[in-house]
Amino acid sequence: MNRGDSAAAGELLSTLTSLAEFKKLPVEALPSLAAEIRDFLVDRVSRTGGHIGPNLGVVELTMALHRVFDSPHDRIVFDTGHQSYVHKILTGRAERFDKMRKRGGLTGYPSQSESRHDLVENCHASTALSYADGLAKATVVRGDNRHVVAIVGDGALTGGMCWEALNNIAARKDLPLVIVVNDNGRSYAPTIGGLANHLATLRLNPSYEKMLDTVKDALGRTPVVGQPLFEAMHAVKRGIKDAVAPQAMFEDLGIKYFGPVDGHDLDAMTSALERAKGFGGPVIVHAITQKGKGYQPAEDEPDDQMHQSNAFDPDTGQALPGGGGVKWTSVFADELVAVADERPDVVGITAAMAKSTGIAKLADKHPDRAFDVGIAEQHAVTSAAGMALAGLHPVVAVYSTFLNRAFDQVALDVAMHKLPVTFVLDRSGITGPDGPSHYGIWDMSVFRAIPGLRIAAPRDAETLREEFREALDVNDAPTIVRIPTGTISAELPAIENVDGVDVMARGETKDVLLVACGSFVGSALDAAARVTEHGFGVTVVDPRWVAPVPRALTSMAAEHRLVVTVEDGLRTGGFGDALAKSLRDAEVDTPLRDLGVAAGWHEHGTRDELLADLGLTTQDLSRAITETILKIAEADAEPLRVDG
Amino acid sequence: MNRGDSAAAGELLSTLTSLAEFKKLPVEALPSLAAEIRDFLVDRVSRTGGHIGPNLGVVELTMALHRVFDSPHDRIVFDTGHQSYVHKILTGRAERFDKMRKRGGLTGYPSQSESRHDLVENCHASTALSYADGLAKATVVRGDNRHVVAIVGDGALTGGMCWEALNNIAARKDLPLVIVVNDNGRSYAPTIGGLANHLATLRLNPSYEKMLDTVKDALGRTPVVGQPLFEAMHAVKRGIKDAVAPQAMFEDLGIKYFGPVDGHDLDAMTSALERAKGFGGPVIVHAITQKGKGYQPAEDEPDDQMHQSNAFDPDTGQALPGGGGVKWTSVFADELVAVADERPDVVGITAAMAKSTGIAKLADKHPDRAFDVGIAEQHAVTSAAGMALAGLHPVVAVYSTFLNRAFDQVALDVAMHKLPVTFVLDRSGITGPDGPSHYGIWDMSVFRAIPGLRIAAPRDAETLREEFREALDVNDAPTIVRIPTGTISAELPAIENVDGVDVMARGETKDVLLVACGSFVGSALDAAARVTEHGFGVTVVDPRWVAPVPRALTSMAAEHRLVVTVEDGLRTGGFGDALAKSLRDAEVDTPLRDLGVAAGWHEHGTRDELLADLGLTTQDLSRAITETILKIAEADAEPLRVDG
Repeated sequence: MNRGDSAAAGELLSTLTSLAEFKKLPVEALPSLAAEIRDFLVDRVSRTGGHIGPNLGVVELTMALHRVFDSPHDRIVFDTGHQSYVHKILTGRAERFDKMRKRGGLTGYPSQSESRHDLVENCHASTALSYADGLAKATVVRGDNRHVVAIVGDGALTGGMCWEALNNIAARKDLPLVIVVNDNGRSYAPTIGGLANHLATLRLNPSYEKMLDTVKDALGRTPVVGQPLFEAMHAVKRGIKDAVAPQAMFEDLGIKYFGPVDGHDLDAMTSALERAKGFGGPVIVHAITQKGKGYQPAEDEPDDQMHQSNAFDPDTGQALPGGGGVKWTSVFADELVAVADERPDVVGITAAMAKSTGIAKLADKHPDRAFDVGIAEQHAVTSAAGMALAGLHPVVAVYSTFLNRAFDQVALDVAMHKLPVTFVLDRSGITGPDGPSHYGIWDMSVFRAIPGLRIAAPRDAETLREEFREALDVNDAPTIVRIPTGTISAELPAIENVDGVDVMARGETKDVLLVACGSFVGSALDAAARVTEHGFGVTVVDPRWVAPVPRALTSMAAEHRLVVTVEDGLRTGGFGDALAKSLRDAEVDTPLRDLGVAAGWHEHGTRDELLADLGLTTQDLSRAITETILKIAEADAEPLRVDG
Repeated sequence: MNRGDSAAAGELLSTLTSLAEFKKLPVEALPSLAAEIRDFLVDRVSRTGGHIGPNLGVVELTMALHRVFDSPHDRIVFDTGHQSYVHKILTGRAERFDKMRKRGGLTGYPSQSESRHDLVENCHASTALSYADGLAKATVVRGDNRHVVAIVGDGALTGGMCWEALNNIAARKDLPLVIVVNDNGRSYAPTIGGLANHLATLRLNPSYEKMLDTVKDALGRTPVVGQPLFEAMHAVKRGIKDAVAPQAMFEDLGIKYFGPVDGHDLDAMTSALERAKGFGGPVIVHAITQKGKGYQPAEDEPDDQMHQSNAFDPDTGQALPGGGGVKWTSVFADELVAVADERPDVVGITAAMAKSTGIAKLADKHPDRAFDVGIAEQHAVTSAAGMALAGLHPVVAVYSTFLNRAFDQVALDVAMHKLPVTFVLDRSGITGPDGPSHYGIWDMSVFRAIPGLRIAAPRDAETLREEFREALDVNDAPTIVRIPTGTISAELPAIENVDGVDVMARGETKDVLLVACGSFVGSALDAAARVTEHGFGVTVVDPRWVAPVPRALTSMAAEHRLVVTVEDGLRTGGFGDALAKSLRDAEVDTPLRDLGVAAGWHEHGTRDELLADLGLTTQDLSRAITETILKIAEADAEPLRVDG
């Protein structure tokens, strides 16, 4: 395939400039359209990167949705919105896929600003059922006549919010609510837990198709079409004991269950959704789909690379050669394994992110000491608390943005109990193409409010290894080690360490103390060099541990004319605020200027684009510092006024 | 009953100075002990206040636990630790009940510092299964031979964490883990949702005992004793179709289920727990108990007053006359009903706290617009987001401490979507006898990090009504109205309003700007009067909206020599930090001193005791302000030095 230009969209697909156009297509054209959509997805996502496997699995399901329901009058909510690409195509956005997940292009999730068909910009998992519960209740309160449809992946069902929502939905027989469970047997990885084990009985059988045939034979028809579904399912349930578990669970809750439906059989899906729409109360449609369907590399290996990837070779599915460099995640993973080899009390926990957080390496070496709890951050944290109570030192590795799900558990279940749990927060700071819900900019603001908790922000591979080991030596409090996204640009050795603070560069005069956290140490050194050209001395330090604020910074600050902080996190309540408070409490009145991520929901882009938007490039830093120290120097040079 | 002195503990109970003493008691003595414990609980809790109903319901269950398991070698974890009073008695703490929940006395929850039998200081609901999962996994990793027991109320099962934990526990057949579901048909109130509906089929039948008899007859024996339990339950399940739902659900997950067991039948409970202990994998014991058992007022009315109360008349269960005064909660509840009468788009949501947050009043007047979602804060928030998407303005009323459970949902599902949801946080600020897990001191630090979110802190009934209505007029962002605990001491009218900021008192000279938030406005006015006696002018202002920081404060601060903030929340990242940042950004260099709750896990007591500990009494405020402004005045009076 020629990598130079995007292939033209298929004949049918190119007519889809709006949802109305799709609805006009004759049913006979739909199989061809499905094929065109798959070709299109592979072509475009192989260029831009994105979630390829999940979307190849929902082509027919999404087409059926839009045939049966009337968006936006009916409300369609996708859980983990990365399965919404087909929805974007059908609602007239195919031509914008060239720049998907790039600055100014389509987002990788539903987006209100893109389309009135995108209601919920859903990106953390397991929320759709709660949204749908609220939307459906509002429909009843307002007396308008709408259907609400939530599409939930089986992986998202491991999240506790789904249970909370199902329990509430089941109590309301009047809600016009259709829940489509898109069961592909895996989310990021094969789904974890008891529910998954039951599903696995069905899914791990290589001849699933054959079994469906058996069911069809037993019933003398397609399981979900042409007969009262509920009764049919009872027959299926009794026929295949234990093979199709969820309906029993959903029925225990009192929610009607239709299925299982072959999610790639457009007629069957359409028919099931029509019946669900007409049911008049909450109903679950259980669709069985295949992740990566129709694209051999994704069918063969539906997780990891073919779940979400950067640009790849469309012929092989293999990642295109990247820029090289050592990944932060790899350094952590290797060090975790090294520590685990030495210390039998160290265990690893992750929440459906074993590969992308590095826990998979521990699982390879010490399978009995690595735990993937599914998309369940709250449980990950409190289960870790239990392990710590019993004398282990758990390392919980999740993305920074996802630990927000478990703030209360980190505070009360871990920190209030003074338990040694180390949280390694991958993708902390500004990340990029996944947009604002995925930026790891909260942790320093939010988690530093927890008494006793300590936060380290390593600047390179060596400090990551060191600070991770320091964290593991803390026995009476939780620790966070925040790891940036991407690759490590350089090793940045310190000149000396003063009471825990690494001095990275010394100014000739004590004008500016530049306190740089984690990923900003490199650009701070560059910025300092530029400021020095203006005749001011800049001392650059890395506090290593950003919470609590090292005491040494207070005395260093007292010796300088200006303190500048720069951090890869929200300004609001962040490290700058923390140091300012330390200076106030110590009655050090050196002026402080804090640079970091401004409050806001910043549009997706590359990390560099975002840093430019946020005024956090090296040039920005040097300009901000120079302007401020110049102003101070001018004020100091003015004749003293006594006008008090 | 003489209210002057505590009744002496019963004959058996007074011998229980340690768990070993309990274990020595002959089985024949236990019914008498149970009766003594009930008398003791009613006597002591009627004096100190506390959770009476839940503990009366677990007397036999707890005795059976400690007969079967060997604490602390075996690990016993109580969910919602307020059901641990009997456990405290059996582990030798009866004599300390005189001062329970009072300064220096027993806590109302398990407490590590009280006893080695208290492992988890569990006070937010639904965490026990996750703790137990971690404890049990650690037992396997370490190869020690312990049993782990989690006692979970049926109400706590509405929390999503339980589902996350069960899903993980079910996947591990090797965990030595016994889950006791204490099913009393209600938590704070009759349990919400689909699971509860199924249980209700069983529980709402007034002749539950009769039905158990029927089961016994059908099986020719007590349901759980003397036969393989699993098979027995299958028989029961088929016999009483749909009546006993949970086992189907638990079995779908793959967790063995024993029950239902009469939780007041000590032999049956002991036998069931023995069998569960010997099972060799995760197992659920479903105990049916009666909340308030054995004490008529609590049996008759097990919720509200008899769930948790202040001191009450032991003969009637009625609350003793309190100090009077209007409750913050009542003012809010009345205003909510008034607004709902006017605005059909306003709906109310709470999480198992309908009475104590005031949503019950809305439910009485507009039952179709009041929603109690159970102990499920995450769902409460995202369901509210769904309602707001559909054009409603939801008011989510929960305790301040419990909204921490849903930080991520408030941030992404509500604020990122710019949805108008108003959170009314009851019990915000320092509360008291429930201890550090229940202080509402986090919201200003944590939630102000959310871009766009606005926070109001009313100081009296009038500003509560006004600011609540201002919150309801915000159409494009979430709002928080934080309400203190207890009663309103006085109405505090402003002198004037300057650009949104209420001026409460004007100093004759512009020395100190005292910015007081919410509940501290009254004591700030008193403190200001004292400072004035030292010859300094103090202007007292109430910002009303504490996030974002009102711009008017910046210019006011510039005109004064000292700014002091005082807030009923954590100093770390709180309002003081926020105002300090505003001043830095505006290059206003007036010194700022921020007073608030120091970081830490502060011991329970009355609110006044806690404020004294924290240096936040009126005297403390005036002393801190006077000392600081004196120091500034001295420095200003010194000859100017030029030593640059």
